[in-house]
Amino acid sequence: MKVSTAVDSETSLVAVPGFRAAAVSADVRGKADGRLDLALVLSDVPCVGAGVFTRNTFAAAPVSVCRDVLGAGGPVRGVVLNSGNANACTGKQGRLDAEEMQRLAAEACGVKVQEMLICSTGRIGEPLPMARLRPAIQEAAKGLSRDAVAGRAAAEAILTSDTRPKLASRRIETSRGVITIAGMAKGAGMINPSMATMLACIATDAIVSRNILQSALAQAARSFHSITVDDDTSTNDTVLLLANGLSGVSVEEDEGVAAEFQKALDEVCALLAEKIVGDGERISKVVEVLVTGAASHQVAERLARSVGGSLLVKTSWFGGDPNWGRVLCAAGMAGVSLAIEEVTMEYVSMAQERLAVFAKGEPVFHTKEAAKRIVQEPCFTIHLQVGEGQGTYRLLSTDLTVGYVDFNKSE
Amino acid sequence: MKVSTAVDSETSLVAVPGFRAAAVSADVRGKADGRLDLALVLSDVPCVGAGVFTRNTFAAAPVSVCRDVLGAGGPVRGVVLNSGNANACTGKQGRLDAEEMQRLAAEACGVKVQEMLICSTGRIGEPLPMARLRPAIQEAAKGLSRDAVAGRAAAEAILTSDTRPKLASRRIETSRGVITIAGMAKGAGMINPSMATMLACIATDAIVSRNILQSALAQAARSFHSITVDDDTSTNDTVLLLANGLSGVSVEEDEGVAAEFQKALDEVCALLAEKIVGDGERISKVVEVLVTGAASHQVAERLARSVGGSLLVKTSWFGGDPNWGRVLCAAGMAGVSLAIEEVTMEYVSMAQERLAVFAKGEPVFHTKEAAKRIVQEPCFTIHLQVGEGQGTYRLLSTDLTVGYVDFNKSE
Repeated sequence: MKVSTAVDSETSLVAVPGFRAAAVSADVRGKADGRLDLALVLSDVPCVGAGVFTRNTFAAAPVSVCRDVLGAGGPVRGVVLNSGNANACTGKQGRLDAEEMQRLAAEACGVKVQEMLICSTGRIGEPLPMARLRPAIQEAAKGLSRDAVAGRAAAEAILTSDTRPKLASRRIETSRGVITIAGMAKGAGMINPSMATMLACIATDAIVSRNILQSALAQAARSFHSITVDDDTSTNDTVLLLANGLSGVSVEEDEGVAAEFQKALDEVCALLAEKIVGDGERISKVVEVLVTGAASHQVAERLARSVGGSLLVKTSWFGGDPNWGRVLCAAGMAGVSLAIEEVTMEYVSMAQERLAVFAKGEPVFHTKEAAKRIVQEPCFTIHLQVGEGQGTYRLLSTDLTVGYVDFNKSE
Repeated sequence: MKVSTAVDSETSLVAVPGFRAAAVSADVRGKADGRLDLALVLSDVPCVGAGVFTRNTFAAAPVSVCRDVLGAGGPVRGVVLNSGNANACTGKQGRLDAEEMQRLAAEACGVKVQEMLICSTGRIGEPLPMARLRPAIQEAAKGLSRDAVAGRAAAEAILTSDTRPKLASRRIETSRGVITIAGMAKGAGMINPSMATMLACIATDAIVSRNILQSALAQAARSFHSITVDDDTSTNDTVLLLANGLSGVSVEEDEGVAAEFQKALDEVCALLAEKIVGDGERISKVVEVLVTGAASHQVAERLARSVGGSLLVKTSWFGGDPNWGRVLCAAGMAGVSLAIEEVTMEYVSMAQERLAVFAKGEPVFHTKEAAKRIVQEPCFTIHLQVGEGQGTYRLLSTDLTVGYVDFNKSE
């Protein structure tokens, strides 16, 4: 059996056999600017569904609806998604609106209510403009298409402060046929430690049982946990995966296929996550914080998050200032025990040039110019070796820019 | 016995009998700008000393020296403090430099080495300019004075990015005599959750034993833990308290005096903490986040810190935008269980005008203008009632401004 994966990052969900998409302007924001803000994704046949959701206590109404749908364990057919309004902190009316949105989309698509998933993203605390959403849902259902343009329009309609659509896909060629996985995502703000403010909707034509699909998604979704822009966890974070089985290839019957499926799904999620962090609100650079040699994976993660989440570290990245003392200071406030005499810190450039600034507890002489050259690159790595064990963590963070603050100061 | 306290927030350490101070320019920053950056505080007689220090793993060399001095339990006589260089992450040489600074100051003042405390604040990771510090320490010792100008100059010399000196004092009149407490502090950046980037040096002429002094300071220093500008914990945070006993009034012999002493010390620390947060780097407003009714004090603190530390919340304060959804979202990511139907959120203006925006799990209708009026004030309160118990926490936070990012992007 031959198993291989091919990359095509511009392929949208409609590249997966049996999936159609549509996008329309529902004018959710009330600006009458014609912006695409309602997307619909539908499978021609019933799918197995899986989802990973925000851990925020104030999880939005659409998140609750999705949890109910997937919790019931029945087949799912599609997803309706809107941007511009998160339908979060909206109380009982918010839940009623979410249910109406679900019902309207299901009816318009000719499927059962409990087969329709819903996602919302945007401003928190305002009621959904149902009067404008109702006709838009009808219109979207009529526009469902397997045309590449429709798939790309759907990826556009879910954006909020993102500057570009985020797509990723993989094909797995097996001796029994080809499996396709394709996903779209939105990110931009509230990109955080325990899943970004993000929506991602991924489709595949693999044959997979519900439990395996859920655990495969749970593993792949870790990519979304290891990116940070501002350490905030939104009320609406959702990753959905629909598998309609039309490839005729079962993931579970062959270990090689199962491994390739997981790998391809991991890659799709990792690519979407990288696109999300790379399009963080008004960022100017992406920094990989790599911690190795920690006492455990958890310790490595705490160190990486403490560095990648420090405002002073992030502002110095914005200034291209190799202020390595702030990096160590941030590591020192992670609340984990560290043997300082075992700590080494290096900058690694995009061309893999390494510059040690601190080794085994002592500062290492280097010219500020050499460090500056690396820190002023659009992407670079900070490698902290803490020499106590095998724990490793890789966090993708961004700088904190004047533009971020200016952009978020009011909505 | 009559016990009373009087306020004078502009009184410096030299107002405490037996304390002298001095400040000179050592040109620590190497800019030859004549800026005061070395302060010396000396008691004419031996003092009981107490200290509270940073929890950062990369605690700076001067912090280690202070811990050793206070840990030995002997009398202390003075403190030498420099700004412009933190002497942190400087390895073995950093420790040698700190010890030399301690020895030089002790010799210049004619006291024992182990009676001298030291503090440094400023940039991390660079060696102390000892060649410039040596003559400056001699000069400072010669300039020691009980003149108010000298006390104020010392408060200026410890500043980094602060815009103004921070002083606070209290007098306690008892039937046996008057006790004075006076302190100076610096803050500005790295103002954080488990003690601000700050130095504070407090003097008193009370007669107090070492254990009582330490526990009184530990309680009073909580004020410094409940302020946040950027959630960073520096390598150098230090609060020192020296008691020289010259008032002739013993704190421990009278419960009334003990209570008043604690109250006055609490007030001095609270005032210094408020001055620190109010002078946070390039902030434009101070926001009190008050959580009441939480299951415990710890839960209340986590909720307050999650709100007061959220970048998106802090940027919206900067914009004067009453984005209450972001506040609830931030509370929801605190990682504590909350009964949403018991959550109420109100804005409280400086004039104590209250505006509910969310009550018992439901949004409350209000005009955006009414909320905006409060959020655009230089100080206001966000009151979260979570209705599950008696846990309360009050955090003073600030907005996150374009100026903060611009200021910290390089040093």
